[in-house]
Amino acid sequence: MPLENIPDIVVGRLPRYLRTLTYLESQGKTVVSSQELGDDLGISAAQIRKDLSMFGEFGKQGTGYDIAFLRKQLRKILKVNRTWDVAVVGVGDIGSALARYQGFAHRGFQVRLLFDNNPSKIGHSISGITIQSIDEMETALKEAGIQIAMLAVPIQAAQEITDRLVEAGVKAILNYAPINISVPPHVHVQYIDPAIHLQHMTYYLESPED
Amino acid sequence: MPLENIPDIVVGRLPRYLRTLTYLESQGKTVVSSQELGDDLGISAAQIRKDLSMFGEFGKQGTGYDIAFLRKQLRKILKVNRTWDVAVVGVGDIGSALARYQGFAHRGFQVRLLFDNNPSKIGHSISGITIQSIDEMETALKEAGIQIAMLAVPIQAAQEITDRLVEAGVKAILNYAPINISVPPHVHVQYIDPAIHLQHMTYYLESPED
Repeated sequence: MPLENIPDIVVGRLPRYLRTLTYLESQGKTVVSSQELGDDLGISAAQIRKDLSMFGEFGKQGTGYDIAFLRKQLRKILKVNRTWDVAVVGVGDIGSALARYQGFAHRGFQVRLLFDNNPSKIGHSISGITIQSIDEMETALKEAGIQIAMLAVPIQAAQEITDRLVEAGVKAILNYAPINISVPPHVHVQYIDPAIHLQHMTYYLESPED
Repeated sequence: MPLENIPDIVVGRLPRYLRTLTYLESQGKTVVSSQELGDDLGISAAQIRKDLSMFGEFGKQGTGYDIAFLRKQLRKILKVNRTWDVAVVGVGDIGSALARYQGFAHRGFQVRLLFDNNPSKIGHSISGITIQSIDEMETALKEAGIQIAMLAVPIQAAQEITDRLVEAGVKAILNYAPINISVPPHVHVQYIDPAIHLQHMTYYLESPED
């Protein structure tokens, strides 16, 4: 299947496959069946086989997938067989945690630039990266050729900063502000909002006050 | 439709509808069409009407939805017309940020208990909550009747702590450790893993090194 025709929902599952394969490899496993992979992920074996078959032939019937090979292919498909520089905008609690997070490096990302509008933060460093004024954002992003930003600013600032990021050439935004942001069609947005996930789960809980 | 037959994917969209409605209300709007709601969320108007119709009649053809009324209904359906106490396990960068986060209260959640295994953290407070030893976790969770936990421990500890949370009566876990965890069928798990979202987006980017 031509790569541009792959449904986005399938693309969204690939990083989860990759994460599980990486974990299995760290446990010393070299081969995994679609059944085992599915059990671990809560996805059916048939779905996994169908998803992966859209990108090529990665396993032989009956022998399972070679973990090292499939990992390599998925990293290539997801373009994380290289390291992407990322900017963090808004260095509050969440932005600081992202700047310090050790889990990005081996998955294809490195936080390179930090921006905030708070004069008491500008000039300070986190994990060796100096926090720059948001006034310098566009120039610094363009100079570094950065395409990916994590947005951790207050709700009121989210859309304005988004517009500025897009203007500066950013093409992928991971938005931590709990609000929908508008971007042109060539820009990708994903959201992280813990309350959304908590509310999804409370639907299924019995309220003790009922 | 009986509530137990609603597809989980539909349930998962309800918190997003609620978030957008809350935002629109804060902007002074009182009525919204499925079209406007859909434009804001990147979901089709037909999908929104279909989703909401599973729960009842919330709008009249041609007049749009009454925002206050629909918000109230959604909060009831998602059971966030009350406040749920939540425990945070693992008070590193992410756990601390969650403990300090101001955005939970008006969405139905309050962080009540904090646990860590690091003696240098135990006894210290964040946002007025004392960090307790993880040795006290089961007792404290049961005593407080807590059903929801946010898990922000290292990968190696995630499954063991999950098992202990389940044993202590927790029924919903928001897992920040970048690993799949196994739970019995009556326990709900959602994941927050920024690298998964970043990798989803890099699929669509042009790698400057290609």
